[in-house]
Amino acid sequence: MTATPTLDFWFEFASTYSYPAAMRIGGLAKASRVAVRWRPFLLGPIFKELGWATSPFNVYPTKGRYMWRDLERTCEALGLPFAKPALFPQNTLLPARVATLVLGQDWGEDFCRAVYRTEFCDGHNIAEPEVIAQILNNLGQDGDGIIQKAQSDANKSQLRANTDEAGKRGIFGAPSFVTPDGELFWGNDRLEAALE
Amino acid sequence: MTATPTLDFWFEFASTYSYPAAMRIGGLAKASRVAVRWRPFLLGPIFKELGWATSPFNVYPTKGRYMWRDLERTCEALGLPFAKPALFPQNTLLPARVATLVLGQDWGEDFCRAVYRTEFCDGHNIAEPEVIAQILNNLGQDGDGIIQKAQSDANKSQLRANTDEAGKRGIFGAPSFVTPDGELFWGNDRLEAALE
Repeated sequence: MTATPTLDFWFEFASTYSYPAAMRIGGLAKASRVAVRWRPFLLGPIFKELGWATSPFNVYPTKGRYMWRDLERTCEALGLPFAKPALFPQNTLLPARVATLVLGQDWGEDFCRAVYRTEFCDGHNIAEPEVIAQILNNLGQDGDGIIQKAQSDANKSQLRANTDEAGKRGIFGAPSFVTPDGELFWGNDRLEAALE
Repeated sequence: MTATPTLDFWFEFASTYSYPAAMRIGGLAKASRVAVRWRPFLLGPIFKELGWATSPFNVYPTKGRYMWRDLERTCEALGLPFAKPALFPQNTLLPARVATLVLGQDWGEDFCRAVYRTEFCDGHNIAEPEVIAQILNNLGQDGDGIIQKAQSDANKSQLRANTDEAGKRGIFGAPSFVTPDGELFWGNDRLEAALE
């Protein structure tokens, strides 16, 4: 028996290319016989260290215009629904805290995928507690109760620790993938290479 | 008879991911029945407008460290020889001027590929006139004579005009590919999509 290798999938709910990666990683990993550990983190503190007060796609509008068109093409090629959100980037502190809390549950990854769909297909603002509660309720969970638990000091600290760990691993964007031997792959385009 | 579509291939000799793109584009375009127009330009003026005095891979060392490892993996997967140059980025004004002058010749693309090999495999500095003259001589050309011609006012203006055109087309990095209907694709990873 060979142990199943585990790939760390570092994602941020505000990250545009994390959306197709989150939708693809389950099936691709299964086909490659790789286990995936979903690692939510916040890009804000990492971007701040790089000198950016917001997404680089807003800091550099030429890159931003290109990214939206490229993401549209990428989603089209994958058959993924996509609609550019009115607000970008969105404040992802609350969904990231909820993800940190619930990813041990068997519906945790479903929650993450639903957040991405809500943001990049349905046009809702995932910073709003009612939006996140609705996603949780739709999964048959107690939305308000989970949101309250997600604000515990222990859970907040866990998310901060995850973000610190991302920085230490050399992560500067999302999605990022880290193999068991510490190889870093950045971008939805590198998912296949990371699984290999 | 259908007219062969032409893809514009915008490249900069200092650009690391332009190296695998330059090595791949000939064969892939032929297989896709697409003509390629090689468009040399300078990233310096474009980066300056974005506020970078040098390559973003030097401005943001975390991204730079990642890029060198990723480029190494990319070249390995393609079977391309690669050695990280001691100096990065290199001053590419002279080879870009020569490329602007000679790309109408049937050995023009060979010159460009040889420049990339000299920089990213052989460890030479392509800013040096002797290095460029040697590449031209190896192609059976008059190195010194061509270098002199490349410094003409008309040729210098042509390269400046190319760089202005790149900026107007929304290009912010290299390699970039522009289809006949103006769709922009950025990065060695997007070559296949651009040809499609």
